[in-house]
Amino acid sequence: MPRPKPLSGFPEFLPEGRIVEQHVLGRLQRTFELHGFASIETRAVEPMDRLAKGGEIDKEIYVVRRLSAGDPSTGSAQGADELGLHFDLTVPFARYVLENAGHLQFPFRRYQIQKVWRGERPQEGRYREFTQADIDIVGNGDLAAHHDVELPLVLLDALEALHRDLGLPPALMHVNNRKLAQGFYTGLEISDLAGVLRTVDKYDKIGPDAVRESLINEIGLTAAQADLCTRLAEINTTDASFVDQVTALGVSNDLLDVGLAELAALVMAAGDQQPGRLVADLKIARGLDYYTGSVYETELVGFGSLGSIASGGRYDSLASDGRTSYPGVGISFGVTRTLAPLLGKGHLTASRPVPTCVLVAVDSEETRGAAISVATKLRKRGIPTEVAPKADKFGKQIRYADRRSIPYVWFTAAEAGAGGEVKDIRTGEQLPADPSRWVPEEQDYWPSVQGVWDPE
Amino acid sequence: MPRPKPLSGFPEFLPEGRIVEQHVLGRLQRTFELHGFASIETRAVEPMDRLAKGGEIDKEIYVVRRLSAGDPSTGSAQGADELGLHFDLTVPFARYVLENAGHLQFPFRRYQIQKVWRGERPQEGRYREFTQADIDIVGNGDLAAHHDVELPLVLLDALEALHRDLGLPPALMHVNNRKLAQGFYTGLEISDLAGVLRTVDKYDKIGPDAVRESLINEIGLTAAQADLCTRLAEINTTDASFVDQVTALGVSNDLLDVGLAELAALVMAAGDQQPGRLVADLKIARGLDYYTGSVYETELVGFGSLGSIASGGRYDSLASDGRTSYPGVGISFGVTRTLAPLLGKGHLTASRPVPTCVLVAVDSEETRGAAISVATKLRKRGIPTEVAPKADKFGKQIRYADRRSIPYVWFTAAEAGAGGEVKDIRTGEQLPADPSRWVPEEQDYWPSVQGVWDPE
Repeated sequence: MPRPKPLSGFPEFLPEGRIVEQHVLGRLQRTFELHGFASIETRAVEPMDRLAKGGEIDKEIYVVRRLSAGDPSTGSAQGADELGLHFDLTVPFARYVLENAGHLQFPFRRYQIQKVWRGERPQEGRYREFTQADIDIVGNGDLAAHHDVELPLVLLDALEALHRDLGLPPALMHVNNRKLAQGFYTGLEISDLAGVLRTVDKYDKIGPDAVRESLINEIGLTAAQADLCTRLAEINTTDASFVDQVTALGVSNDLLDVGLAELAALVMAAGDQQPGRLVADLKIARGLDYYTGSVYETELVGFGSLGSIASGGRYDSLASDGRTSYPGVGISFGVTRTLAPLLGKGHLTASRPVPTCVLVAVDSEETRGAAISVATKLRKRGIPTEVAPKADKFGKQIRYADRRSIPYVWFTAAEAGAGGEVKDIRTGEQLPADPSRWVPEEQDYWPSVQGVWDPE
Repeated sequence: MPRPKPLSGFPEFLPEGRIVEQHVLGRLQRTFELHGFASIETRAVEPMDRLAKGGEIDKEIYVVRRLSAGDPSTGSAQGADELGLHFDLTVPFARYVLENAGHLQFPFRRYQIQKVWRGERPQEGRYREFTQADIDIVGNGDLAAHHDVELPLVLLDALEALHRDLGLPPALMHVNNRKLAQGFYTGLEISDLAGVLRTVDKYDKIGPDAVRESLINEIGLTAAQADLCTRLAEINTTDASFVDQVTALGVSNDLLDVGLAELAALVMAAGDQQPGRLVADLKIARGLDYYTGSVYETELVGFGSLGSIASGGRYDSLASDGRTSYPGVGISFGVTRTLAPLLGKGHLTASRPVPTCVLVAVDSEETRGAAISVATKLRKRGIPTEVAPKADKFGKQIRYADRRSIPYVWFTAAEAGAGGEVKDIRTGEQLPADPSRWVPEEQDYWPSVQGVWDPE
């Protein structure tokens, strides 16, 4: 069998990268749970009629079919029960909520960390299989506006833990509010709200002048309307002073006032709870139609080329069974999208590629039992331990540990009863030790993760 | 949208069941890492030519194709680069080892916990999507026999943690050795070794008499040969006394002696390290052709109807690139296969369906900030905390906690500075408390898992 090649768009990590990913997933999980979010997992497949909605993303859906369901070239197995791999975690979550509504307590706070699949053309930052970490709060019939404030701060709390504990770059969340934008445009007597949102969404790509031109030439705004829309988009503040700046533009509308108040509440709460990590940025539009209030995007400071690593917003109807609708607010953090580039460029490293803290050396195959007995005692006290695979010369066994960055090598005493000696192979220091009492340095128990990048 | 129905064969858990699953996965991960196994994950898809080997399982493979790759009914997108979902974790692991051999240290100890997919006919205990937890040790060119002893004991250590800490039923591993069986049959001058193994594999289903008959009538053994094969299969001992019982059958062969010695070493080590959890059981054959030494099957005591929950063995060539072959020993624990039935029958329960330990009540929407401030202080000290979604009457807020089995409700003091009071809603006891110092009962921090079943 020739050596296989990687599949483009399907990233896989070596053990060291996987350790970084495990640390990141563990921090996310812990933070989400500290905020009372329950974990769910949904199956990888959904019926095609639930996935395909006629939009752009339909082309990217992976259809799944049993090989035995007949030769696909004859089309014999096509039908209403056809399945596809989910391309996000929102569609399956909406289905899960409808399916299990009678067994869930609302507002339902859930997190979900799973792989999703999109048959995109693979390119820098685009993957065909990638891990997302989503949090949502969903109500039954209604959902209070304060959850729009709470939810992005939970994600910022998680990103702060990744920055503080694992050395990822700090995050900056850019937030806006659809009500604010729509109220403003309505106050200007603009009718094509979707067109304006779509154009403003390109602000970062094409710049304010091109946005203004496009608003006039393509959407048909007057120069005065286009000016005001562009000036609105230019406003960004880290505190609630954006309210005065918007008011100074002289547009008045009830929905605008609601949007201003909601966004101000979010910015002020963020100033208290996650100072410096959130900015009101009135050019943020988010393309998706279903957002109806707050919208969120997030950059890693100094790594803007990664795009938005965590996006979401408020939607008034995640799902509906005809009688009840389920409004929600959610945000999705792109785990692979963030980690694969950082790992690829060496910006995140693990202290070792194995969990092992101690390698117990073996004198001879006859005394392997003594080494196993030491290892068992160490593991019982929570110290990850391996027994050397071969009774090689000690120098060779030390090299086995060294190649894996295992910090300690234990030598069992030939005399029964004595514990042996333990060598820190980084310093060369070797001391007598008892496997029932010895402990490693606190930071050596498990692999640790470190960021390696220049702050801007 | 009408209420969706579950898809047969694709089990999903409610949040309470998911908490049980998370606890189980966490214990597995911790035990595997304490033994120095590194985690890897592989992509969900493999090229079809790597998955389909012409065996029975081929029919069950799910083929995956982009919707935009053309109308499947025209067959336009079929080709050499066709992909399928992996149906186990061994095929992708073998590919991963070949692909990354230059970056891995051997012997390579890895664990892998992922979903796999099989388009089987759904029935009791059979799933189309399910989670497996595999551990393997793989060598480069060679792998010492002591790893055949070590590996099943790592899995037993993990199953013991599930039993001890989470209340799963205890496990009993049944082990045999292919060399023992093949040496014995060769010593009897039987040529159709595979036929005999296949027949003996049915021992538990059809019983000894039918096995004996089948060996004579279908495989063509003499009555004397069939007798001895059946008598070998009947031997099972919890210590090394099986060696004498086999020797007493009067068959002599070098490979048999090697097999006896290897199996005796395993049984004796298990007696030391996992007493009472492993039995030499000479009827265990394991259908798969690629095992060449030790073979393992595992039952949950009292839940034999689940079948073998963890199976594996020694294989002399996991993978080969033509120049180097990679022998290994591995075992696969069926997480979904074990948990879905136990959860379905109520044999495992979580103490609550949410992580939340404390609900902070809200006096009025104006003082929500005070409640958030208490919650932040509690979370900083590792206490999972939610703020009540609505400033309802306190009775209603207590019911909110009660419906989720959240043990504590915190009432913020209206006076600034004072911490407030905390009520244990199980006992009704309410005491003044400071959010910077109060701690819950140790067992209340996080949800716990309990087994509910009658030991036999």
